Amino acid sequence: MTKLETLGARAKAVEHRLGIMSSDEKNRGLLLAANALLDRKEEILAANREDQKRAEQNQIKEALLDRLRLTEERIEGIAEGILQVAALEDPIGEVLSMKKRPNGLLIGQKRVPIGVIGIIYEARPNVTADAFALCFKTGNPVILKGGSDALSSNKKIVEVIRDALAGEGFPADALLLIEASDRETTKEFMRLRGYVDLLIPRGSAGLIRSVVENSTIPVIETGSGNCHIYVDESADLDMALDIIHNAKTQRIGVCNSCESLVLHKSIVERFVPRLVERLDGVEIRGDEEVCKVSKYVLPAVEEDWGTEYLDYILSVRTVNTIEEAISHINRYNTKHSESIITKDYFRAEQFLNEIDAAAVYVNASTRFTDGLEFGFGAEIGISTQKLHARGPMGLRELTSLKYIIYGNGQIRK
Amino acid sequence: MTKLETLGARAKAVEHRLGIMSSDEKNRGLLLAANALLDRKEEILAANREDQKRAEQNQIKEALLDRLRLTEERIEGIAEGILQVAALEDPIGEVLSMKKRPNGLLIGQKRVPIGVIGIIYEARPNVTADAFALCFKTGNPVILKGGSDALSSNKKIVEVIRDALAGEGFPADALLLIEASDRETTKEFMRLRGYVDLLIPRGSAGLIRSVVENSTIPVIETGSGNCHIYVDESADLDMALDIIHNAKTQRIGVCNSCESLVLHKSIVERFVPRLVERLDGVEIRGDEEVCKVSKYVLPAVEEDWGTEYLDYILSVRTVNTIEEAISHINRYNTKHSESIITKDYFRAEQFLNEIDAAAVYVNASTRFTDGLEFGFGAEIGISTQKLHARGPMGLRELTSLKYIIYGNGQIRK
Repeated sequence: MTKLETLGARAKAVEHRLGIMSSDEKNRGLLLAANALLDRKEEILAANREDQKRAEQNQIKEALLDRLRLTEERIEGIAEGILQVAALEDPIGEVLSMKKRPNGLLIGQKRVPIGVIGIIYEARPNVTADAFALCFKTGNPVILKGGSDALSSNKKIVEVIRDALAGEGFPADALLLIEASDRETTKEFMRLRGYVDLLIPRGSAGLIRSVVENSTIPVIETGSGNCHIYVDESADLDMALDIIHNAKTQRIGVCNSCESLVLHKSIVERFVPRLVERLDGVEIRGDEEVCKVSKYVLPAVEEDWGTEYLDYILSVRTVNTIEEAISHINRYNTKHSESIITKDYFRAEQFLNEIDAAAVYVNASTRFTDGLEFGFGAEIGISTQKLHARGPMGLRELTSLKYIIYGNGQIRK
Repeated sequence: MTKLETLGARAKAVEHRLGIMSSDEKNRGLLLAANALLDRKEEILAANREDQKRAEQNQIKEALLDRLRLTEERIEGIAEGILQVAALEDPIGEVLSMKKRPNGLLIGQKRVPIGVIGIIYEARPNVTADAFALCFKTGNPVILKGGSDALSSNKKIVEVIRDALAGEGFPADALLLIEASDRETTKEFMRLRGYVDLLIPRGSAGLIRSVVENSTIPVIETGSGNCHIYVDESADLDMALDIIHNAKTQRIGVCNSCESLVLHKSIVERFVPRLVERLDGVEIRGDEEVCKVSKYVLPAVEEDWGTEYLDYILSVRTVNTIEEAISHINRYNTKHSESIITKDYFRAEQFLNEIDAAAVYVNASTRFTDGLEFGFGAEIGISTQKLHARGPMGLRELTSLKYIIYGNGQIRK
């Protein structure tokens, strides 16, 4: 057995135990973990300082340094997050659609854990505790592979949680950390079939691509967002401006922010000057029609349509019909979040029906695609793929189903 | 573009059109396909005779030859199968759980097609038409890669269905066949990311393993079944014998037949002689306790516990407690179908809760794990994995969901 297989076997060994724990027990484990993180705050901060020092020596960018940094307040936030997960309803054990067959068999579907979940993520130590809480609540052992930048923090957080669990007789191996950070280990992790049942990569497009290419384990991709807003000819233009302003600028650098507008040609002349004014500080790159209307618009090139800027830049494209808008969006989007601004009933419905994305909006900002905003209470990521889970993933998306069948001697004829 | 990429692009090109077809339209397409198969029966039989001739020359086993063979009656059965799919309720467009958020956003989940589905299967030409019907009904273009043994039959069936669709203005590229059967083509198919959204391998364990190892596309495995029946000390032994006889012998060679018994030690002495008598013609391989009771039982070796015989052979193991039974089954099963025979309420519930399998039964034969028996009307296979679909997969399992959100100007605070 390799070192990683041994780790996998340890996770598998507690899978059954975790799967049959009651919600009360699981919530008690979460409470222990949250309290331990608060009690041992100083140790965690010290470990985090080591990471920060190393990061500074490696001349890491300030934005990344900030994501890496823990403070007393942030640790309290992490503990609070664990308690919020404890307060959520436990999806495990729920029975869906119990139906009686003509032969008397009663067939239902019961929500069960998925099994061992592997998560590969980059330098944000809060993910370590979040991921543990969501997986523990759903009865799934979790093996984490964090970024090397946050290794000291991650090791300490994992140690604190494991100690807290073990101290009260809970299986500490519910939470395991891969400490090695070389490529070979990551690759072996992706092929730990038989030990890991689901792999969730969270991070750069490059990381996700590598997981998809190499993994022999089922993967849920949490992809990037090239999100569009289509302003229809019937749109309330004031509403459109408010929504676009919100979706573009309320938070730059997140996957559900707006990267591209599609405008019906009949409104371009009226709308673009107002847009330019409202989006002061945002670079606008438009097609020919858009450029004609305002000297503040730069000409867009083909590459712009497919780019997730994560910056104060917005591309704008003109279309003659809603069909053209739909086909443009379906071609260039990353299947994340798309919105139409319209007063027209039929166009609203057509957009909802025909756009291929995890979340399709009418008259609202794309920024709402988020587990908390959708009412899930917590989120492990946003899936931009179509299998198993699509859109924000909460507790329910970390579960599987099994058929349970009550008989009284039935045999097949 | 390679030849396969061109095929993928053709499927992608009709995806949108198929996705927005009404149920009426889709049912009309299925009716056309069924009628065309009946009208052009002679051509199909002629093509099938070519396959049979080639198979005979290759000295293929009689069982396989039988699976390959088409008759007038079998073609009628295939057409009838397509009509049955037409009669099923269309899952596409169903909206689940529409909920109002505090900010007034109305958020629901709508059932949508998955996209292009790839299916790799072995020599059964009926799968060609079945798979088309299920995918067409759910608005998914399908690319088939059948076994080389059935190539002439598959080509003809696909031609007939495509002609029927094209003749009435339906997109013929809803159904595409990969004709090349070399390993390189199959491997390229598994990596046709961007063109194929889901890959379903149906066939030998070797095929499935190869797909899992090589695919960069999400896969749903339709695995093998090492199914157990546990006879508890409180069991009605007559019922146990009936169920075991049914699960073992009603149809040999299917994945939901029983391969292994687990007996509570307290019933071994009474039960094994009756079992041996009832399963006349079945070779029984038991552990030491079982062998002691009957001279007709052969000694089992370790390998027996993990073997799916698909034959008139049954392994039998003794346990001291239900916990031991559960742990034995969870260790050796293939997560397919498991059953307990008991009169005890708590043990029934414990078995349902703790066994890790797609279908867990109390007092019934494992043979019921099947789309028709579960009331789905049709089945594309039985998933033994935990993501997206588990157990028999009907129309619903060939769909995805997207969030649809109705707003009236909401922006995120």
